Amino acid sequence: MKGFVSFVSSGPGDPELLTLRALKKIQEAEAILFDDLSAGRILEFASSEADLVAVGKRAGQKSSRQDHINRLLIDYAKSGTKVVRLKSGDVSLFGRLEEEILALKKEQINYEIIPGVPSAMAAVASAGIPLTRRLNARRIQFITGHDIDGELPNDLNIPALVDPNVVTVIFMGKKTFSKLAKVLSENGLPESTPALLAENVSRDNEKLTYSNLGSMPNLIENKSGKGPALIIFGAILKLENFR
Amino acid sequence: MKGFVSFVSSGPGDPELLTLRALKKIQEAEAILFDDLSAGRILEFASSEADLVAVGKRAGQKSSRQDHINRLLIDYAKSGTKVVRLKSGDVSLFGRLEEEILALKKEQINYEIIPGVPSAMAAVASAGIPLTRRLNARRIQFITGHDIDGELPNDLNIPALVDPNVVTVIFMGKKTFSKLAKVLSENGLPESTPALLAENVSRDNEKLTYSNLGSMPNLIENKSGKGPALIIFGAILKLENFR
Repeated sequence: MKGFVSFVSSGPGDPELLTLRALKKIQEAEAILFDDLSAGRILEFASSEADLVAVGKRAGQKSSRQDHINRLLIDYAKSGTKVVRLKSGDVSLFGRLEEEILALKKEQINYEIIPGVPSAMAAVASAGIPLTRRLNARRIQFITGHDIDGELPNDLNIPALVDPNVVTVIFMGKKTFSKLAKVLSENGLPESTPALLAENVSRDNEKLTYSNLGSMPNLIENKSGKGPALIIFGAILKLENFR
Repeated sequence: MKGFVSFVSSGPGDPELLTLRALKKIQEAEAILFDDLSAGRILEFASSEADLVAVGKRAGQKSSRQDHINRLLIDYAKSGTKVVRLKSGDVSLFGRLEEEILALKKEQINYEIIPGVPSAMAAVASAGIPLTRRLNARRIQFITGHDIDGELPNDLNIPALVDPNVVTVIFMGKKTFSKLAKVLSENGLPESTPALLAENVSRDNEKLTYSNLGSMPNLIENKSGKGPALIIFGAILKLENFR
């Protein structure tokens, strides 16, 4: 086994939401391959000697760059460089970790995974609410808003999504949400179902906007920015100040 | 608004999986109310002057202690003490956060939530696999293995659970898993579905055991310990060394 890669979760963006281990890995790295979302202030922890390589793919773009990223990881690892692959939120969630792991395994390169704070947890923390609820939301689920072609996935599990006792978090879902909301509404989920748009979670320009299933498409269309966003809907806790 | 409470996620147990912010909150705390699972080495970061109050409830026990915990939180907060309510994993997940938030709000006590690393993310990190998969698992879900009475919840969403393209994580599910596995199997989920038992995640006595839906009940019955455990099953990545 030659070479080694650390897959490191950067958390949602706020450097204080890095774990102690992630911080150590970033500080010790000789090369850091990072996505757009995992960048920013967190890279200030890196050594001034380290190679900092931006390999991010913007949502909706094709993954032609994945081979290139795999190649870079393999080359750095084989050269004996301490390489960190930095991904935003938790690396195990919607981060194409599988593709990179399998590429490393094919070359018999070992790796480790450093878990982190998912943006979904940071979003509800900022909103001051829990994600699960003992009586009303004993199930939570995370889905992605788009498939490999950038479209709404065609394998949606409708009964799972229209359940009144679940909280659903959609990653990268702004573009397809109006289509999804229509499907869910047609299948019985009330348009009054509470929904929260969480943009730029944990960053200086964080913005949380409460809405509901019926109004969210309009909100996204007219009042949301271009930063990363989560949409959280379902049996979420409505506090008194819940708009 | 008088008094303030910090709800702090301790992560899965390894002190290095604390976030920088959680560490700061623990170091600055004048009182820490902690559950069994959030304790251990993490409390070594606390000031020697701080009150350390064990308020844990073991799984399956009735929640008669919840009122007591709420009372303690309120009393500490109202006295102006810097109080941290420490919960294992991420506080927003299956941690009865709602009950404690609502108790504080009734007394007009303000609070903040510090998100953390969920044990589920740490479990798959230790296993070296992603939780989501771009082609095979675009949905993941977390459920609890027991309801308020310690029994298998009777509001299980069967179509959501027998979906071949989902990864499911069960929290506190060992006691009821044999019953759940039977229900899922009767509803079409193959007994060969991969399953992972993750015990004492990120701790010195961490143990990961691969199995499948059909064999997991026997594994739990005969080979698992008493520590906290997650059961992860479904479309999880099978590496070559997956047993």
